[in-house]
Amino acid sequence: MIYLDHAASTPMNEEVIQEMMPYLKENFGNPSSIHRLGRVAAKALDSARKRIADLINASPDEILLTSGGTESNNTALFGMVHQGKRLITSSIEHDAVLEPCKKLQRLGCDVVYLPVDSSGMVDLDALRNSITNDTALVSIMYANNEVGTVQPVDEIARICRQHNVPFHSDAVQAVGKIKVDVKESGIDLMSISSHKINGPKGVGALYVRRGMKIEPLVLGGGQESGLRSGTENVASIVGFGKACQIAKENLASNYERLKTLRDRLVRRTTNEITHVTLNGEREKRLPNNAHFTFLGVNGEDLIIKLDEHGIAASTGSACSVKTQKASHVLMAMGFSHEQITGSLRLTVGYGNTQDDIDKTVDILKEIVSDLRSVSPFKAKYDF
Amino acid sequence: MIYLDHAASTPMNEEVIQEMMPYLKENFGNPSSIHRLGRVAAKALDSARKRIADLINASPDEILLTSGGTESNNTALFGMVHQGKRLITSSIEHDAVLEPCKKLQRLGCDVVYLPVDSSGMVDLDALRNSITNDTALVSIMYANNEVGTVQPVDEIARICRQHNVPFHSDAVQAVGKIKVDVKESGIDLMSISSHKINGPKGVGALYVRRGMKIEPLVLGGGQESGLRSGTENVASIVGFGKACQIAKENLASNYERLKTLRDRLVRRTTNEITHVTLNGEREKRLPNNAHFTFLGVNGEDLIIKLDEHGIAASTGSACSVKTQKASHVLMAMGFSHEQITGSLRLTVGYGNTQDDIDKTVDILKEIVSDLRSVSPFKAKYDF
Repeated sequence: MIYLDHAASTPMNEEVIQEMMPYLKENFGNPSSIHRLGRVAAKALDSARKRIADLINASPDEILLTSGGTESNNTALFGMVHQGKRLITSSIEHDAVLEPCKKLQRLGCDVVYLPVDSSGMVDLDALRNSITNDTALVSIMYANNEVGTVQPVDEIARICRQHNVPFHSDAVQAVGKIKVDVKESGIDLMSISSHKINGPKGVGALYVRRGMKIEPLVLGGGQESGLRSGTENVASIVGFGKACQIAKENLASNYERLKTLRDRLVRRTTNEITHVTLNGEREKRLPNNAHFTFLGVNGEDLIIKLDEHGIAASTGSACSVKTQKASHVLMAMGFSHEQITGSLRLTVGYGNTQDDIDKTVDILKEIVSDLRSVSPFKAKYDF
Repeated sequence: MIYLDHAASTPMNEEVIQEMMPYLKENFGNPSSIHRLGRVAAKALDSARKRIADLINASPDEILLTSGGTESNNTALFGMVHQGKRLITSSIEHDAVLEPCKKLQRLGCDVVYLPVDSSGMVDLDALRNSITNDTALVSIMYANNEVGTVQPVDEIARICRQHNVPFHSDAVQAVGKIKVDVKESGIDLMSISSHKINGPKGVGALYVRRGMKIEPLVLGGGQESGLRSGTENVASIVGFGKACQIAKENLASNYERLKTLRDRLVRRTTNEITHVTLNGEREKRLPNNAHFTFLGVNGEDLIIKLDEHGIAASTGSACSVKTQKASHVLMAMGFSHEQITGSLRLTVGYGNTQDDIDKTVDILKEIVSDLRSVSPFKAKYDF
């Protein structure tokens, strides 16, 4: 099998599993218990929290552990924005931001969706013009999950600072792939996810800059300094910590490795297949993301055919595949219905080789050619 | 080590870990992905959901998967109760219910806390008298986490049905230990937790009777029929499913085994140590719970001494140990400060033997005697 859907989820690193095992087995204590097993668990949490903080240059006390990226985004938005306040976001956010936005609108908040250009870059003038005295939060993703475009986060943070508005960023796709430094960038709140960086599913974090006041989403026993209650998911948090440590140690080499694979994938695909475009920003882009439009082809047919050849791919966000709605990201980028229909996302990662890429392009050529031979657009494009 | 803190968390069953392993390793797909790895994950979710449903005699579509018991309780309360409405609960709920109640009060809800008697049984007349036309939910725990008292859940459900008010029960401590049947009992919403029944931490469920309308707490990609978004924690859900299957198969024998151990623990402790009482209801009680008050002794000193002898115990809820506040459960039961101070919870479970119990009582006798010899209450009780 060739797995090219690393933006949807990733295999766990073997070292991550090994690090988790003692906490799945003998070290099963509740970190709130005061006996030895409880203390062992609490200590494991401390050291995992430090590793998570280190990856983004935060302090451990700024890391709020959650059940994943979605909960982190929900916590940031519902925790910061209240009735009558303005929230500024972008039109290409993940549903884990957009759906809370819709609920906030129903609760009487004023939500502004910033436009993006055809490469998926957020309009910063629109941001500047949208900030009011009532603005409680700006929430703009670090890098887009579909097309891989990386936003000018430092500049956004600067604008927010100037206006004294907190800035949250959904960095689920960016962390572990490009350098993300919360101290340098001036981000105030940031969502990260374990299963996107070769850690276990079901765990994530919200970075909350020291001094930020945020209301908890999940209340109870007072874990996470009262900001996220519930018995801590110790084994998974330990695995997340290990994944963060590995990601940090290998950030530069991994970046180069992924970019080389991705660039080869893009080069061969665009050279050897006609009527194909790479979507998203060329340069300001995640190193592992290739997002194409193959004209005259249905992306979903492509995925099914690729799957038959043992290649795992996606049309865009895994989370919206089942709802069958057209990508709001590509619509915001001004794509036509036909361009959206023909889209395919290939995201490289852990374990992929040059051979995987070459096999994929070879099979893709075949499949695209087969599908186009029966396409209703055959005549239009003279395939 | 002798672990007698199974109400705080439990070791995983070896079969549970084995069932999880393929999903921690090769089957790492996102259940929303349409390729083979995604389908494998989605299928695993389906079969786990069925096992979870089976344990409580629900249908799979009535099982909403969450990150744990706390999130389940939060989802039930915030999802059912809105501004201006009444919520009726008890004064001995877990903080995962009481803290959401406090927030609902701040949001303009009217929360009624029902009193309990000295054994921790909720006053049903008070319940009947509290239900108004504005009552949106009754939330009363199935069994108490500190003293083990089991509430008359069927009777509570009957009263709620008569008044057409939905009934939620936090059954985190009850499920897997006593027979819980949502169809028979008439419960409308019920919280359960994996790590309390020898499954992994970080996963739980909310039973939502078909037809109940509930608002989601965590919004995003629309997983769990839109009621709980976020990439599903596949491996842990699979483990939870296996734990439920094992719990169901062994419910009767496990009940007898735990009750025999617990009864021996209670009998020997109350026979061989003076000035000790068993707290909570004698008969309507979880089979694994022994909760004592040792007069003239500080429960926390007891735990520390027991820990030095390799015995893991608790004063009450693990979740409130660190906050150092006196048990609200024992206060509601009318206990004096001194009675609360001297409390110790021992909860038996998986792997415990008669030998564990005998060693524990032997050591307990020694420790209690040592602590009483230097107790300021020495003269008062003539130890």
